[in-house]
Amino acid sequence: MPVRLDRSSADFDQRFAAFLAAKREISADVEATVRAIVDDVARRGDAALLEATAKFDRLTLDASGLRVSAAEVETATRACDAATLDALKLARDRIETYHRRQLPKDERFTDPLGVELGWRYTAIESAGLYVPGGTAAYPSSVLMNAVPAKVAGVSRLVMVVPSPDGKLNPLVLAAASLGGVTEIYRVGGAQAVAALAHGTATIAPVAKIVGPGNAYVAAAKRLVFGKVGIDMIAGPSEVLVIADDTGNADWIAADLLAQAEHDASAQSILITDSARLAADVQKAVEAQLKTLPRAAIAGKSWADFGAVIMVKNLTEAVPLADAIAAEHLEIMTSDPEALAAKIRNAGAVFLGAHTPEAIGDYVGGSNHVLPTARSARFSSGLGVADFMKRTSILKCGPDQLRALGPAAMTLGQAEGLDAHSRSIGLRLNLS
Amino acid sequence: MPVRLDRSSADFDQRFAAFLAAKREISADVEATVRAIVDDVARRGDAALLEATAKFDRLTLDASGLRVSAAEVETATRACDAATLDALKLARDRIETYHRRQLPKDERFTDPLGVELGWRYTAIESAGLYVPGGTAAYPSSVLMNAVPAKVAGVSRLVMVVPSPDGKLNPLVLAAASLGGVTEIYRVGGAQAVAALAHGTATIAPVAKIVGPGNAYVAAAKRLVFGKVGIDMIAGPSEVLVIADDTGNADWIAADLLAQAEHDASAQSILITDSARLAADVQKAVEAQLKTLPRAAIAGKSWADFGAVIMVKNLTEAVPLADAIAAEHLEIMTSDPEALAAKIRNAGAVFLGAHTPEAIGDYVGGSNHVLPTARSARFSSGLGVADFMKRTSILKCGPDQLRALGPAAMTLGQAEGLDAHSRSIGLRLNLS
Repeated sequence: MPVRLDRSSADFDQRFAAFLAAKREISADVEATVRAIVDDVARRGDAALLEATAKFDRLTLDASGLRVSAAEVETATRACDAATLDALKLARDRIETYHRRQLPKDERFTDPLGVELGWRYTAIESAGLYVPGGTAAYPSSVLMNAVPAKVAGVSRLVMVVPSPDGKLNPLVLAAASLGGVTEIYRVGGAQAVAALAHGTATIAPVAKIVGPGNAYVAAAKRLVFGKVGIDMIAGPSEVLVIADDTGNADWIAADLLAQAEHDASAQSILITDSARLAADVQKAVEAQLKTLPRAAIAGKSWADFGAVIMVKNLTEAVPLADAIAAEHLEIMTSDPEALAAKIRNAGAVFLGAHTPEAIGDYVGGSNHVLPTARSARFSSGLGVADFMKRTSILKCGPDQLRALGPAAMTLGQAEGLDAHSRSIGLRLNLS
Repeated sequence: MPVRLDRSSADFDQRFAAFLAAKREISADVEATVRAIVDDVARRGDAALLEATAKFDRLTLDASGLRVSAAEVETATRACDAATLDALKLARDRIETYHRRQLPKDERFTDPLGVELGWRYTAIESAGLYVPGGTAAYPSSVLMNAVPAKVAGVSRLVMVVPSPDGKLNPLVLAAASLGGVTEIYRVGGAQAVAALAHGTATIAPVAKIVGPGNAYVAAAKRLVFGKVGIDMIAGPSEVLVIADDTGNADWIAADLLAQAEHDASAQSILITDSARLAADVQKAVEAQLKTLPRAAIAGKSWADFGAVIMVKNLTEAVPLADAIAAEHLEIMTSDPEALAAKIRNAGAVFLGAHTPEAIGDYVGGSNHVLPTARSARFSSGLGVADFMKRTSILKCGPDQLRALGPAAMTLGQAEGLDAHSRSIGLRLNLS
């Protein structure tokens, strides 16, 4: 049974706080194991990578077999269903169009003193894209990670994907090809992250690593952070639906289950001011679960982490939504825009009854790599800016240095940094 | 003696690679210690925080004494030198003007199918600013961290600063006041980071933590990353000067020393095509060191990590500068703009002979919190965007869902996510 909370009950604050604090994922203590793997790959390169791959993926390779060849990618693509490939192409094109609008603008201006200031964006030279193996190998995620990198101008885009028992998902290879991936290696786990960060004889290092993975991958990314850039550490994902009496219970139930089927630690939450709708949605969830292929997963997620929160009116929903800071926020009310404008924390907002979150997962165009587990309070979905960096620009002439120099010298001295002051004073004949 | 490398020598590639790979900072293994402190503060709150403060800062407080009062800040500010306060105000105003231009724009557009797409930026609700104690307590850094947060619209800005033996730097408090910090607590180290991340009875938790610190602070930030956002993990900083025969040896030497005086692990590098200039700069460094108050630190940095790299022409400098990816890049050549345009990796560029890096440290207006230790390959200096997050927006009507739905359903089925497909199919009467 999902949690049921009522905003008007006396113990709501306490129960809501406990609900927010509940851990949904047991983070296995894999740090020591991961550190040993990463250090080994950093030290011994390909040899360590190949040994780990034999051990964890039951796949014996030599270094020449690490890279997935262009011919393999072609063969895999030809084996894919034509309609699925067309859908992937539509997704790719829409993702590209959306993300092109995110290309940041350079800035250059001259201030009243004549100082020239600004900044310039450049693409990261190379990026690594981690793609999980097994059931979580989603071709759509390959596109969501690869396309923004290509739009940013990343020239070398390296994908790693584990190939347990030698198996690779043909759709994942097809998506890599469509997304502009330039190199693919059949390795995964902490060893793949280590290879991308430290480089081996076969795999040149990259500057940044993105993409989701299991606890080992997450720990490895955390460990190499600093040596290379990483994206967010993804946690269990969630949807929050805010609906009023105009909501369609079947549609809402379907959306809650679409989130729940991802993972037993996923979370689906409904906030509503309609007791009738709340009851109908719960009934619809139970009914739909009966015929859902992934009912075991979705049912467990709904029972363990699902929630229905009753509010007196939609205004009460706003601070709750901000505290939940959902990865996905669906608003199905009579005026979704007005409510959305009041909510600060959400990874992505889906407006109105005809925008199920699944559209955003695949073909909406916006990115489906979004901040999970309340991190929308402080972070954003993946975007073009994640594959670029900003260099600031400063240019003074003699007049500008004369105008600004004395204040900088004062601060340098106040901070005990005399060489700072001198570097200015020398130029002004002041020292 | 600094390293001397010549691009035209046979073993250059090897020696340059070794130079880049050299570790400048011994990262103490403090992880276990830090984990214990962070867990203790997470569990026991103020009590643990107060105990750690008594132990590490030799300062015995009760919870009511944690917060630095407005009266204390006022008293401290009144104790500051007037010229220094004026310089801080000039710095604050210029930083604010520059960063206002970084405010990101929201986007909303309707595509040819009628799908409404876009994104919206909102400020992070609360941010924590770590300020080191002791000699590294720089008022300028307080401004560089606080002002972008205020420009972004962060309403609650919490500063923590250790107060060893009860001492606080008055200029740091004055800068906090000028920068718009809303709460100040006299705590530091891993325990302060833990308090900001997990909250205590006295210190409400924040959503993101920024600011530099020692190995304990860095390890604590790495540990709480995910629970809260963090900025970069700062490493030893560096300057790269590229100069041709037009360069002024004394000015360049002063700039190299301004970097070197920060820290014995700082790094100052000169790349030049002029053997005459290289020799003159080395002589000037030695001469200036003789009268520099922080000569011990600067001399050690220059001797241990300094480098002079000879190239045949400035074009050869470009790939070297990109590999070094310096935090600060000064270009003192006859055409600095042309050279700057070719270089991809640098935290900040300072153009021409009259733009010593120290101007950017204090009053240029751009941010002095910049990516160190080669991380300019994948990351940017601190900016307004670090205190905001982007929420993506998607809105379909029935027609748009009909147009896009089938492709999304195909992909949902291909990924084995039937509830995803159903959430669309139900709305289209297709399931």
